Amino acid sequence: MKYAIILGNLGNTNDRFLSSGYKDQPTKEEMIKRAAAIEGVKGVELFGTWDITSENVEQVGGLLSKYNLKCASIIPDHFAQKRWGSGAFSSKDPAIRAQAVEETAKMAEAARALGCDLLSLWPGQDGYDYPLQADYRQERQWIEEGVRGLARSYPQTRFALEYKAKEPRTHSYLARAGDTLLLAQRTGQANVGVTIDTGHSFVAGENVAEAAVMLAAYGDKLFHLHFNDNYRSWDDDMIVGSVHFPEYVELLFWLREIGYRGWYSMDQYPYREEAQGALRESIEFLRAIERLLDEKSMGEIRELVKHGDAVQSTRWLRKRFLG
Amino acid sequence: MKYAIILGNLGNTNDRFLSSGYKDQPTKEEMIKRAAAIEGVKGVELFGTWDITSENVEQVGGLLSKYNLKCASIIPDHFAQKRWGSGAFSSKDPAIRAQAVEETAKMAEAARALGCDLLSLWPGQDGYDYPLQADYRQERQWIEEGVRGLARSYPQTRFALEYKAKEPRTHSYLARAGDTLLLAQRTGQANVGVTIDTGHSFVAGENVAEAAVMLAAYGDKLFHLHFNDNYRSWDDDMIVGSVHFPEYVELLFWLREIGYRGWYSMDQYPYREEAQGALRESIEFLRAIERLLDEKSMGEIRELVKHGDAVQSTRWLRKRFLG
Amino acid sequence: MKYAIILGNLGNTNDRFLSSGYKDQPTKEEMIKRAAAIEGVKGVELFGTWDITSENVEQVGGLLSKYNLKCASIIPDHFAQKRWGSGAFSSKDPAIRAQAVEETAKMAEAARALGCDLLSLWPGQDGYDYPLQADYRQERQWIEEGVRGLARSYPQTRFALEYKAKEPRTHSYLARAGDTLLLAQRTGQANVGVTIDTGHSFVAGENVAEAAVMLAAYGDKLFHLHFNDNYRSWDDDMIVGSVHFPEYVELLFWLREIGYRGWYSMDQYPYREEAQGALRESIEFLRAIERLLDEKSMGEIRELVKHGDAVQSTRWLRKRFLG
Amino acid sequence: MKYAIILGNLGNTNDRFLSSGYKDQPTKEEMIKRAAAIEGVKGVELFGTWDITSENVEQVGGLLSKYNLKCASIIPDHFAQKRWGSGAFSSKDPAIRAQAVEETAKMAEAARALGCDLLSLWPGQDGYDYPLQADYRQERQWIEEGVRGLARSYPQTRFALEYKAKEPRTHSYLARAGDTLLLAQRTGQANVGVTIDTGHSFVAGENVAEAAVMLAAYGDKLFHLHFNDNYRSWDDDMIVGSVHFPEYVELLFWLREIGYRGWYSMDQYPYREEAQGALRESIEFLRAIERLLDEKSMGEIRELVKHGDAVQSTRWLRKRFLG
Repeated sequence: MKYAIILGNLGNTNDRFLSSGYKDQPTKEEMIKRAAAIEGVKGVELFGTWDITSENVEQVGGLLSKYNLKCASIIPDHFAQKRWGSGAFSSKDPAIRAQAVEETAKMAEAARALGCDLLSLWPGQDGYDYPLQADYRQERQWIEEGVRGLARSYPQTRFALEYKAKEPRTHSYLARAGDTLLLAQRTGQANVGVTIDTGHSFVAGENVAEAAVMLAAYGDKLFHLHFNDNYRSWDDDMIVGSVHFPEYVELLFWLREIGYRGWYSMDQYPYREEAQGALRESIEFLRAIERLLDEKSMGEIRELVKHGDAVQSTRWLRKRFLG
Repeated sequence: MKYAIILGNLGNTNDRFLSSGYKDQPTKEEMIKRAAAIEGVKGVELFGTWDITSENVEQVGGLLSKYNLKCASIIPDHFAQKRWGSGAFSSKDPAIRAQAVEETAKMAEAARALGCDLLSLWPGQDGYDYPLQADYRQERQWIEEGVRGLARSYPQTRFALEYKAKEPRTHSYLARAGDTLLLAQRTGQANVGVTIDTGHSFVAGENVAEAAVMLAAYGDKLFHLHFNDNYRSWDDDMIVGSVHFPEYVELLFWLREIGYRGWYSMDQYPYREEAQGALRESIEFLRAIERLLDEKSMGEIRELVKHGDAVQSTRWLRKRFLG
Repeated sequence: MKYAIILGNLGNTNDRFLSSGYKDQPTKEEMIKRAAAIEGVKGVELFGTWDITSENVEQVGGLLSKYNLKCASIIPDHFAQKRWGSGAFSSKDPAIRAQAVEETAKMAEAARALGCDLLSLWPGQDGYDYPLQADYRQERQWIEEGVRGLARSYPQTRFALEYKAKEPRTHSYLARAGDTLLLAQRTGQANVGVTIDTGHSFVAGENVAEAAVMLAAYGDKLFHLHFNDNYRSWDDDMIVGSVHFPEYVELLFWLREIGYRGWYSMDQYPYREEAQGALRESIEFLRAIERLLDEKSMGEIRELVKHGDAVQSTRWLRKRFLG
Repeated sequence: MKYAIILGNLGNTNDRFLSSGYKDQPTKEEMIKRAAAIEGVKGVELFGTWDITSENVEQVGGLLSKYNLKCASIIPDHFAQKRWGSGAFSSKDPAIRAQAVEETAKMAEAARALGCDLLSLWPGQDGYDYPLQADYRQERQWIEEGVRGLARSYPQTRFALEYKAKEPRTHSYLARAGDTLLLAQRTGQANVGVTIDTGHSFVAGENVAEAAVMLAAYGDKLFHLHFNDNYRSWDDDMIVGSVHFPEYVELLFWLREIGYRGWYSMDQYPYREEAQGALRESIEFLRAIERLLDEKSMGEIRELVKHGDAVQSTRWLRKRFLG
């Protein structure tokens, strides 16, 4: 099992009411050190701009080596600068669209330099807020073209498109597993796939295990996974298992069934929590489930999903987990 | 601990697409027998019209005695006849309003005859569907007046108002814990309180434990409790614990803290599930939590809620329940 | 413009609390007569079992002729009989899956006999309710196989898959525009496409105009349209425009832009409303928008969506519609 | 009609992804000037810390006079400093609770100095995020005590409690109209009431007009109103009328019926929009409705809500507003 965390989860947190932040910002090395100290963590994901730029690749690579961590992926910055405010890949301004591609290309280079073959793209500003504000046909096509070009330019890199129905826009173009897979397919490039963020999937009203199975079944397109929890109406980015339970069991079951080999990466936003503890707790929760999901359990669940009796399934969960 | 179930949960189920039902309807005695056979069940709740009428009180009483079950409450019918279709207590037709009161009075008599002091009122048709369709001021007042009159006429009976934000109307007047408590207070009668249905509370966006504490703190007004689970957007009436987990732990903790002495009554709607098994599973889930909530655990949770550290709280839950 | 209504909208209505219904059931001829009397209505959609069977095709055809109505589509019954209760195309029972195909084939024949080339498939029971209850991989594939076989057998018939995230199951397989289009594509048959129900799209968290554009752009797959309104959390099936407004303007704009040539069919469920009036009101609302969407308005909206200024878009809507 | 805006709406905007902001920050005078330039605006609401402090009261008062604006209310800062991060009035730290009261008292003084008798309290950090993290009984009581003390100390000032179900916490204590009114009542002070924010009410699943009527009917407790729009699942703080329409008509009708005499204050968050235009558009939308709500219309709506026929109500809206 390969656990990772997004490095920025260990940094300061803020929102629109407290933009200077709920915490203090540790140094990059301090964050990397804290990540490495979480049992089970083998890799970190890096945000463009915040964590990594073309200029500091070597320095970051050195720190990762020092703490024996891999770069699990880079998430290029398409959301944290004023220029992306009205869209990156789908900006109505061709210069911005070109910059979105260029910024991504830089991060593909950076990833390569760090021995990492995965870019998780989250074009969070690519969407719209109001009715009659967007050319859905044209703008979706621009995203498709941008990603296709990148995938062709960097054939050794896998581009995982992360979907999220809303925030920071009221509507994102990459909103759900299905529409994101459709766009990935439209690029015609084998190295374009999808990232599932469990919390985004909850908010989209999906069953996350079903989404994972669909992506796998329709072309082996589940490239990457972000874990967190929430109350289903918003991306609260909470500790895994703090709200939900059976759905994580089901997800871990199906990830094995579909032969998922990627990272299990924690993507939280611990506004007010001690971050290292919050991340450790998520991983310990997943590990506790994994321990109980032994071969016997896997076989039993296979029978349960084949049979479809909700009373039996619920009883099995209770007996296996609550004793 | 006093577990109960709503008798009708063991009957046929239907929806607007399959109005003849997903199942067959057992006889009343068969349903009572099945209820009694669920370990831990000491009482049943009876629906007016469906389970009990002024005419069959003695017969029902005999069956309950035979199977050693108490009548936990009666839920008068304010929703299952055409005449209530546009409201019962708040109907624009004064004759219907009078009938709503009369029907409730009959059930108060029936409850008394069965040695039961609790009526759970769920005026599900009292609401509205469209903008500009209702006189919110007048109609809420009619509900208040109807309930006040009943509470005065039957001072030995406790009237628990059950809230639910929507279904069968798009908006109910008794929608949330707060507005329902306000109406209960307005009656000025000590024997008017509130029923929490855990699923209704989820759908209302409430934290169910917080709602229970508020009702208790503001006049000891938590009179009754219905248990079920759902996906938070609709009253799915599922097996308790099939979706959520920490929130039930928290609820059971707080029910002890506030000294709740009423029933823990299962209110499910097992559309396609074998009903007895679905109800048994809910009670077994609650019992499993109760077992772990020993005095030591209670003390530890008291410290956790006083301290407020989410990492500690989540860790405690994991360690106590997942080992 | 071709307005239609679903015939059953004019019949009795019920829910799980009042299964005998809020209304009385008119005769089939009475319903057809009432449909024909709504200005603008040129066609009706027929539900299998409820409205049409292999046995009454000729009779129904006669009535449609008499009242000068076309059969806009048939919606085969995959939801209103006990045998479909745990799924039709995805039933774990191969006999039921075969029946689902067979029933659909009969309705394809019936449609042909009525001069109608469209079947709108709504496999509402094809889904699941609880975690660990379904084999997502296998069951989705069964739906795909069933639909592919039908599309091959009836190449002159268009099969429009209608998606809906939930109800009657807590999770449907055809849940959103994207995953439904993916399944349609997987059949490899040009005569398989998608039906958008505006209310289902609202509940799925989609922007309905964006969904329509995506289906059109990705293979001209918007085959059919159902109109109704709701409060976004449930399929309330209300009068069009009773809750929302700008989103219908936007949808009608984009339907013209993408060259949609299908029906505008009303799909409501007027629980307590006089049905003919409720349907008429929906059509009048759409017509009022259409009137204002003249060529000048179309040109102006084209500029607005190209420019993307929400203040301008909102102002335009206000000035054009509220004067 | 007394329109106001929240001054900060004209300033920079940010979120957790772009904490430095989507815009540039104008000077205070520039913002006041822009507010005054919006036709119909007679007052501004001031945020503590951001707009007003004990130190700059005179300066702010001078600017308001210069531009002929009244101070409509002050919203004391209980959310925008690190010290409030885990709660203000309900902080587990008694020193913070004291500071919350002290800060509010300062703003009561500032308001008095500006000739304003209204404080709108939005204790947005007073809530919790995780299960088992909060002592609901104790913490709600602390809020009650804090507000009661302030209301007694400043009997000439009206304290309007603004509710919001979530953000920045996953659960707020002042979450819905009902529970907020209950707390207001518990203070036992006539000068404690409630602020409705239309968008918060949508997110809470309330019908905003019904909430307004309830607050008025239960003790004349609707003290203040914030206007904005959203998609019902999150506080998007959009231009009024950009998504919803009939519900604003209904609200304006009922505000007249209950004799509301307070401000109609715009509370938006125009992340990417030109702010002055976005605010102007909201006011123009409300004015357009007001124009159509003449005495004849008021009388007609009175009949509609008495009659309760949804078809009639919907038709009336269409005919009156879409012509």
